[in-house]
Formats: sequence, C-alpha cells, structure tokens
Amino acid sequence: MKQNWAITLKSTGLFIVLSITACAANPPATDPLPSWADGATKRGIINFVDSVTDGESADFVAPKQRIATFDNDGTLWSEKPTYFQLLFILDRVKIMAANHPEWKTTQPFQAVLENDMATLKAAGKHGLIELAMATHSGMTTEEFEVIVNDWLATAKHPTTGHPYKDMVYQPMLELLDYLRANDFKVFIVSGGGLEFMRPWTESVYGIPPDQVIGSSIETRYELRDGKPVLVRQPKLHFINDNVTKPVAINRFIGQRPILAAGNSDGDFEMLKWTTSGKGKRLGLIVHHTDADREWAYDRESSEGRLVKGLDQADKNGWLLIDMASDWQVIYPYQIRE
Amino acid sequence: MKQNWAITLKSTGLFIVLSITACAANPPATDPLPSWADGATKRGIINFVDSVTDGESADFVAPKQRIATFDNDGTLWSEKPTYFQLLFILDRVKIMAANHPEWKTTQPFQAVLENDMATLKAAGKHGLIELAMATHSGMTTEEFEVIVNDWLATAKHPTTGHPYKDMVYQPMLELLDYLRANDFKVFIVSGGGLEFMRPWTESVYGIPPDQVIGSSIETRYELRDGKPVLVRQPKLHFINDNVTKPVAINRFIGQRPILAAGNSDGDFEMLKWTTSGKGKRLGLIVHHTDADREWAYDRESSEGRLVKGLDQADKNGWLLIDMASDWQVIYPYQIRE
Repeated sequence: MKQNWAITLKSTGLFIVLSITACAANPPATDPLPSWADGATKRGIINFVDSVTDGESADFVAPKQRIATFDNDGTLWSEKPTYFQLLFILDRVKIMAANHPEWKTTQPFQAVLENDMATLKAAGKHGLIELAMATHSGMTTEEFEVIVNDWLATAKHPTTGHPYKDMVYQPMLELLDYLRANDFKVFIVSGGGLEFMRPWTESVYGIPPDQVIGSSIETRYELRDGKPVLVRQPKLHFINDNVTKPVAINRFIGQRPILAAGNSDGDFEMLKWTTSGKGKRLGLIVHHTDADREWAYDRESSEGRLVKGLDQADKNGWLLIDMASDWQVIYPYQIRE
Repeated sequence: MKQNWAITLKSTGLFIVLSITACAANPPATDPLPSWADGATKRGIINFVDSVTDGESADFVAPKQRIATFDNDGTLWSEKPTYFQLLFILDRVKIMAANHPEWKTTQPFQAVLENDMATLKAAGKHGLIELAMATHSGMTTEEFEVIVNDWLATAKHPTTGHPYKDMVYQPMLELLDYLRANDFKVFIVSGGGLEFMRPWTESVYGIPPDQVIGSSIETRYELRDGKPVLVRQPKLHFINDNVTKPVAINRFIGQRPILAAGNSDGDFEMLKWTTSGKGKRLGLIVHHTDADREWAYDRESSEGRLVKGLDQADKNGWLLIDMASDWQVIYPYQIRE
C-alpha cells in the first residue's frame, strides 16, 4: 500500500516539487507468482531469489551477474502437436506453392501439400532442413520479419484455435517479471530460429531482440539499389541445442547464468553448465504432466523428450515443475476470459 | 543548480518521506563532452542526441531502439604500433616458448622469439592465424580470461609505457557515458577477439560482456572431473570485419543501430548499414590526425586503413572526428596527471 501526492508550485524562475510518500511500516507482501500453487517449487524459486538479492546473505549475487536463461519451446510456450515453427514452415510451403508448381511432385514438399504426415515424417531431419531452407531463406531479414509477424497475426493453433502468441505460459510470464523486478537480465536460449523469435519476444515476454539466442542460418550483406540489405542464405549457421547451448551462452552472453530453465534433454547441458558454477544457482525443468489443460509427455515424446533431465534432476538439485500441480493457470487467456 | 532536502519522520507504524527539489528555471547545462573542442563535430553529436531524445521532435526514437555500435581498435583505444591483441600474442609466444622448445626453430614462432619483424611480416595473415591459434586455444574459457587479465595488469605499451587499459580515448569514454545517460544501449562491434575484450570492457568502458561482439574461435563443451568446461578450439568461428559487421550486428543485436562509430574501412559497411535505416542516424569516423599526441595515419596504414571512409564520409553525411582539433585530451591519464 503506497500513496503518492505531488504538488508543483511555479513561482518566479523556480520550480518547487513536493512529493510525499507514506507507507505502512510492514506492507502486506503481494504475491509475485500468483499463478503458481503454494508448494515446494514456488518456495524454492522465491527462496533462491531472496537469497541472491539479499545484500546480507553469503549467497548474494551482484545485479550485473544475475543472468537467467530460458529455453522457449515447451518452457515458455507450448510445443504440441509439434513445434510451432514447424507449423509455420508447413503454412509457408502451402502459400509459396503458388510460385512453385514443381512442389506438387517433389518431396518433401508434395507431402506437405497433401497433408501426408507419414511421408513427411519419413523424410526425417534432412527433409525438415530442406523445408526450412526453402521457407526461411532468399528474402532479406526485414522481409522475413514481416512474414513472421503476418503469420503470428493470423494463424491459429490447430487444436486450441488460439493465436500462437497466446499459448505462452502465464506462470512463466510472472517468473520473467519477478526476475526482472529483482534486477535479473533474462535471455532466451532456444533451438528455435533466431529471427523467428525476435519479432515477438519483446511484446510477449518483454525480452528484447539482443537477449534472444537461437539457431540461425547465414546471412549475406548486399547492396540493392545502392541500399544495404542482409539476405538470408539457404545454409545453416548454428544449431542451438544440448552441448551447443553453453557454447552459445558463452558466445552471446559471456557470463555463466545463475538460473536456467528448460523442459527437454536439449536443455540438459545448459542446466548443467549453469548450476555447476560457484555460489547459489537454480535449475528449473518444466515437466509436462497436464493432459487436461496442456499436454502430458516426457520420455517418449519426439518434441521435448525428457529422460536425462528426469533421471538426474534430483542429483543436480534442479526443481521439477509439475505443470498439473504447480501451475494454477496455464495460458494468459484463461485469466482474461 | 539543484538542491535537495529530505526529511524522514517516523511515527507509529508510518514512514513519511518528504522530499523537496528546487531547481533554477534554466539551470546552466553542464557540458556532457568536456574533452571535445567546441566545433561542428561536437555540435553534430549533441544535436543528434537532442533530436532523437526529444519527444516533441519528428526525429524522436524510442529508448528501446537507441542502439549504438562502436568499433574498438582505433575507435575506443589506440592501435599503434600495431593492434594490442597482436602484442598480446607476441608476449604469449615468448612466455609459452618455455614449454615449446621446437618453436626456436619453427616459423613463425622463431621470428617472434628473435624479434625478427621482417620474417614475421612475410608470414602474413596465415602466420598470424597460426600464432593466434597457438596462443588462444587449448585452454578453457575461464583459464583464458585469467591469462588476459594477468597480461592487462602487467604489460606496458612499448612506446608510452602505460598499461593498455589506460590507452583508451577520454573523449570516447565521455561519449559512451553521454549516450547511456540518454538511454542508448551501447555495443562494441570489433574485429578483435570476443574473449580478449570481454574481461575488461565493463570496467573500462562500462560495457557488459553481452554487449561485446567480436571475432571468435570455436569452443567445445566437455566434462572434466564431472564438471562442464568450454575448451577453446584451434579453429576460427567468425571474423567480424567489413561486410560481416552488419551480419554480426543482426545476429547479436537483432536491430539496426541508429549510431555507429569506427575509424577504418573495416567499419565502412557497419556505418553504411546503420545510416541507411529510416529516420535520423549518425555515423562517426575517428580520423587519426595527431602525430604529436597519438598517431597520424589513414590511407597507407596497415592498421586502421581508411580510404573509402575518407572519400565517402561527406556523401553519406558521416562526421569525421579530427583527433588533432576535435579532442582536447586523448587519454584519461592526461587528466589525472
């Protein structure tokens, strides 16, 4: 409870500003994580933040070293029935097919156009990269940003019918805000495409473009009509996954995080790297346990496969977030509705 | 002229804070760039900052888009008699030679040990990369940071006798502070080694590790005694120079800067990329014209070669900083002395 009065008096050549602040001596603390159920997970997070921000604590960490890294797919937003970027690719193939009549008889494009998921799956990683390159390269970086924004503004999730940007986790939005309010600098460290994420991470997560790390393709500097552009090339530059996540963290951030959150074994090394540093650290794993409100999957899933993380969370002191019991709300629209 | 009084009254369960601020209506502005001579360059910089930060101006830029990028060698610190990182390499070869008896008879190492600059120069870029790999790889990222810090703490510049960290430009330190005071986010975008710069950019320039972009080698995630480390590999990952500077800016920052500063043709594309964007932009080139207080060089120099930048600055509306006449002080120690 806080009240402010400001009175401005203007006299000859002088501004006088009077500001009076009155606070109750022990104001009731507002819950920084209202969508999190009271329990060991929420307590563990709050205790961690309290101890690294308490100047009197042996665990105190200076604000400049309060780096937190979050995976995206399955950690900040959903990843079922498959990665949203793959759904974007499939939508793009269908739109671009108008200018590519040869795709009607060329795999793996034909499979996409015919919704033939068996053939698409059989095309494997190689087929996926071919689709990604065809849909993600050839345009300038600025043209690609427009394409992503257009898709996000219109596309709907196949089972919930909600825009993809609405399928982010309310409890994680609260956690991001809570960390920032405690002077953490928060980064995304995702296997998703760098330039697929950046157009919307600021408005949805409050994370600016330079705090987003992802997989990337090559770009080339060119002059078009005397103006410089960056043209996206059909060539992978970096895959940000498992052992390369710490590599990218070091390259982009240059400091070891003190908090990392993920949901799959692709995040295992990021969590290991983060929590092996000196001093107090926190590792978090979102465990998808909620078939009713979201999805339930772990060891057998092709998205967000979680085996090592489940088996070794305890040994490493990482907190497993049980989505079904730890989260009272999943999506922001469940509060708005 | 500003005066503050604060009175704290403590009563039963209530804190009342009274704060009174009285300002003269038109307080005399303090000079944000005291080491810069009054003139067209200083005026150009201040006018630019005034216009992009003035909410009433058509040129206003929101704080989140106030990105500024600075080259390092020759822009923020000196680069003569040669790049300081090359001097670091030569020092490292001499120290490491104790464990490499074969270097006494192996070029280009032999040339370094014998101070045979003619042979070293003849070894060219290939020789340089060999020396760089031998001295910059094989250790963990944390071990390398210790090596860089030790060198900076002890090594002295061959002609001035000052520590390298003291050979930064006082006027540019003021410019960095001035931009940050106006809510700019300032990045280094240098051809220098990423992990050669990061250990000291925060303390010297106030630029945190995640706002430093440079050339880099590969690193590999490994477990040593069960603990993860990143081991520096003898393999180039990225050379950050000329056409790749906009590529790196896009990859690391994800936004086009509105201000860029460099000193050589290696910065040409960064300036072009920056100032080709919509709205008001500023390009700055440090022109080394001061043989008495620093060095004088441009078109013929092997470090900081400046030809295109000189010829096209005017056409592009970039400000050439004439070191001899625009800077009243070069190094911070000249003020401290």
